[in-house]
Amino acid sequence: MLTSRRTIRIEWGDCDGAGIVYYPRYFEWFDACTHGLFEAAGLPMTRLLGEYSFVGIPMVDTRARFHRPSTFGDEVTIESTIVRWGRSSFDVQHRLLNGSELLVEGFETRVWTVRDGERLKGAPVPDDVRGRFL
Amino acid sequence: MLTSRRTIRIEWGDCDGAGIVYYPRYFEWFDACTHGLFEAAGLPMTRLLGEYSFVGIPMVDTRARFHRPSTFGDEVTIESTIVRWGRSSFDVQHRLLNGSELLVEGFETRVWTVRDGERLKGAPVPDDVRGRFL
Amino acid sequence: MLTSRRTIRIEWGDCDGAGIVYYPRYFEWFDACTHGLFEAAGLPMTRLLGEYSFVGIPMVDTRARFHRPSTFGDEVTIESTIVRWGRSSFDVQHRLLNGSELLVEGFETRVWTVRDGERLKGAPVPDDVRGRFL
Amino acid sequence: MLTSRRTIRIEWGDCDGAGIVYYPRYFEWFDACTHGLFEAAGLPMTRLLGEYSFVGIPMVDTRARFHRPSTFGDEVTIESTIVRWGRSSFDVQHRLLNGSELLVEGFETRVWTVRDGERLKGAPVPDDVRGRFL
Repeated sequence: MLTSRRTIRIEWGDCDGAGIVYYPRYFEWFDACTHGLFEAAGLPMTRLLGEYSFVGIPMVDTRARFHRPSTFGDEVTIESTIVRWGRSSFDVQHRLLNGSELLVEGFETRVWTVRDGERLKGAPVPDDVRGRFL
Repeated sequence: MLTSRRTIRIEWGDCDGAGIVYYPRYFEWFDACTHGLFEAAGLPMTRLLGEYSFVGIPMVDTRARFHRPSTFGDEVTIESTIVRWGRSSFDVQHRLLNGSELLVEGFETRVWTVRDGERLKGAPVPDDVRGRFL
Repeated sequence: MLTSRRTIRIEWGDCDGAGIVYYPRYFEWFDACTHGLFEAAGLPMTRLLGEYSFVGIPMVDTRARFHRPSTFGDEVTIESTIVRWGRSSFDVQHRLLNGSELLVEGFETRVWTVRDGERLKGAPVPDDVRGRFL
Repeated sequence: MLTSRRTIRIEWGDCDGAGIVYYPRYFEWFDACTHGLFEAAGLPMTRLLGEYSFVGIPMVDTRARFHRPSTFGDEVTIESTIVRWGRSSFDVQHRLLNGSELLVEGFETRVWTVRDGERLKGAPVPDDVRGRFL
C-alpha cells in the first residue's frame, strides 16, 4: 500500500497558551497530507479537478487520538495511507511521529464526489485511481 | 444536563475553495464551545486556572461527523453537553445545527489535568465541578 | 460615515504560547468585519456576488499596529469604517478596543473587482454602493 | 545581510472561496519565516528563551502588499531579511516569490522584549545577536 510521508516543523503560531500544538492544526496537516498522498500516487488535486467530473473528496467522518503533545521547534513526520476502499468512500490513516514515537493518530472517511448536473454526489472510485495506491 | 448554545456566523475566511466550511474550523469552534460550556457552568477557564492546581482539559480523542456542509453567510448554532463523566475524563458532545437541521456532530474526550510537581497528570474531576453540569 | 461594530470574545485557541492573541487572528477578524460593514450597509457579499459582475473586494495592502495585547477571555470590540473612497479602491480602518482602550488598529486597501470576460479587473465602485456608507 | 529562504507549498486549506490564498495565512507564514531567520542566524527561539531574560519579539507594526494572488498547488519561496536595526526594535522584510515573480511583500517591526521583574519591556538588542545577521 502506498504510504506518503511529510515532515512538519512545529511553529510558534501552531501552539496554544499551554505551549503545545493547538489540536485543530493537526487536522489542517492531515488534510494537506491526504492531498499529498494523492499527489504521491500521481494524482494531484489540480489534475483530478480537470478529469472524471471530479469535484473533490469531502470528509464525512474524521477522528484523532492524541497520545503525546508536540511543541514549538519539534520536527515531526506524518505517514499517510489509505487503509480501506469502499465503493465510493475510502479511509485514510495518518500517523504523526516524533522519531519513532507515535504522538497522534488521525482517521478519515472521505467520499469520491462528482458533479451530476446541478447536484454533487458520491460515485465509485475509478479503478485506475484505486490501482495507484496499491 | 447543562447544555450551552452558541451562534456562529460563517465567514468568508472560514470557507475553502469549494465554498464550504474548511473542516478544521469546526474543531476550533467546538473547542471554544467546550470552554463556553464550562463558563455557562460558572467555571470560566480563567477561574479554573487559578484553583485546584488545574492546568487544563487537554483533548485525548476527538471526532466529527459531517452530515451536510455549511457556507458563507450561514448562521449556525452549536449545542454542547457533557454526556459522560469518567473518573478523570469526560466526553463532550457538540451538535451544529442550521435551524433544526443537524449539519455536524462533534465528540470529544478530555482529561481533567493538574500539576503534580514538575509533571502534569490526570486527576479526578472535583465533585463540585461535576455537580455544576447536572 | 457608516461605522459597524462587532464584539469578539478571545478564545483559548486564538492565543499563542505567550498567552496573547496570535496576531494573524486579528487579520481574520478584520476581514470578517469588513464583510460585516458591507452587510451593515445592506450589501451582504452573498447579495453583491449576484449583481454587478462583482467578484469580490480583494486586499491589495493591509497593515496593523499593535498597541497592547489582548488575551484569553477578553471581550473586545472592533469598529470598522471606510475612511477613503478612490475610483475603484477604498480604505477601511478598524479599531479594536477593550472598553475605551485602543489595542490594535487595522488598515486595508481593497479593490472593487469585477469579471470582464475571462479576466478579473478593478472597476469603479457603483455610486449606489458608495452612497450607502455615507 | 543574512537572508533566509523557505519554500511553501500552497495547500487547499490555505485558499478561500475564490480559490486564492486567504490573506491572513501570509502573516502566519511570515511569522514562521522570522523565526526561521533567527534560526538561520544560529538563534532558534527555543535557545533565546533560555538566555538574556528574553521573552520574545512581539510585533508592533506589520504590513503586507499583495501584488498577485497565489493558489492551490503553487510552490512559493519566502525570502526574509532584517532591513533595519533600531535600539530595541528592528524591521523584517519578507518577499514571497513564485519563481522570479514577486507576489507579496511583508513588513514587520518587532521589539526585543525581556522580563524585568513582573513587567515586560523593550530592551537593547544584544550586540552579539545583531552581529549574527550582518
